[in-house]
Amino acid sequence: MELELLYEGKAKKVYQSDTDENHLILSYKNDATAFNGEKKAQFTGKGRLNNEISSLLFQALDNKGIPSHFIERLDSTTQIVQKTDIIPLEVVIRNIATGSITKRLGIEEKTPFEPALAELFYKEDRLGDPLINDEHALYLTDIKAEELAGIKEKARKVNTALTEIFAAIGVRLVDFKLEFGRNKEGNILLSDEVSPDTCRLWDIETNEKLDKDVFRQGTGDLITVYEEILNRLEAQL
Amino acid sequence: MELELLYEGKAKKVYQSDTDENHLILSYKNDATAFNGEKKAQFTGKGRLNNEISSLLFQALDNKGIPSHFIERLDSTTQIVQKTDIIPLEVVIRNIATGSITKRLGIEEKTPFEPALAELFYKEDRLGDPLINDEHALYLTDIKAEELAGIKEKARKVNTALTEIFAAIGVRLVDFKLEFGRNKEGNILLSDEVSPDTCRLWDIETNEKLDKDVFRQGTGDLITVYEEILNRLEAQL
Repeated sequence: MELELLYEGKAKKVYQSDTDENHLILSYKNDATAFNGEKKAQFTGKGRLNNEISSLLFQALDNKGIPSHFIERLDSTTQIVQKTDIIPLEVVIRNIATGSITKRLGIEEKTPFEPALAELFYKEDRLGDPLINDEHALYLTDIKAEELAGIKEKARKVNTALTEIFAAIGVRLVDFKLEFGRNKEGNILLSDEVSPDTCRLWDIETNEKLDKDVFRQGTGDLITVYEEILNRLEAQL
Repeated sequence: MELELLYEGKAKKVYQSDTDENHLILSYKNDATAFNGEKKAQFTGKGRLNNEISSLLFQALDNKGIPSHFIERLDSTTQIVQKTDIIPLEVVIRNIATGSITKRLGIEEKTPFEPALAELFYKEDRLGDPLINDEHALYLTDIKAEELAGIKEKARKVNTALTEIFAAIGVRLVDFKLEFGRNKEGNILLSDEVSPDTCRLWDIETNEKLDKDVFRQGTGDLITVYEEILNRLEAQL
């Protein structure tokens, strides 16, 4: 029996559940993309690794009082989530300066941000996902000012929780991107995924990069470092 | 007697007053620049026009309860202002979508913003004056969160006042850029200039552009349209 494909993104396919109209099935792909899709490759096992990592992290967040759209992992590459309409915002939290912000604002690589810095990007491929401010976000989406404040507060709570979770496995949470969606009751929920595709993760001892930057920068094997993250999480959680 | 040149910007020179250590002399230049200095030209009379227009507008704002660094016009191309340290932020208020925002966010030309949209840019030529959010502004400058809120509130008051002033001379205030500085008492003051270099001004009847866009876009004579703005302001104020 074939599920209805609702949407195909760069890293996941989104299917309508055939057993519950309020559920979606996320199928994690083996595709890796970077630089707004300019760099592309396939890595056998990536879909499984991100599905398993994201499932563990959503469960760990839930255990720390931060719910999300995640319901349960279905098999190696798929998970069941609550159906939401994704709000076209990428919420980025930065604990340490690296990547685009260092060039954009002339901030030295590895500068710590205390408190962590929050950024919003408009999720729109044809515009290259531009940085926006709060007023742009209210203009460009259907969210209200209080909802935007709630999203940012939630993102900071996720930062505190994930920083602890990763510290326990010897990993520094450098920065990460979250997305949020609105469910049929109108509530805004943490959605999308939390994985080495969406987080920058550095080994606390060695500063080794354990995330998609090894693909972006061509400095290491993606599967090896994602497997390392999964192994450490499985041993801890 | 020669004044000490403290700073030379794209459109003005800033001298130390020789009669009051807390005063500066702004000397408006005939240079026009656009696209972060990539397009340049000189226009005889531009310095005089902007000095006179900016003096009239700062006085008109003061009459509406909005003080600034402006003290008085000294001669055709110079004015005396309170000495401030300029905060490296450009505060842009947009009433109608045009220019960079239409491409950046995919917003149709001439879309009205209600309420007006406020944007911050980091005033740093080598970075191309990038768009920033409030958290960036607090990180990159020495201003406090309450001061930033005050700056934005002031910018919105300037928008209301300038919109009225320009409407009275048949001109639509499309958008504008403000800068703020901190005086020796630590107070933040509206600074820099308010002129057709820093405001987009369209004739209400004809939509004719009466601002620096005629130079940016090569669609008209800068001096003619600046003279038109000055003439209308002088007849009204």
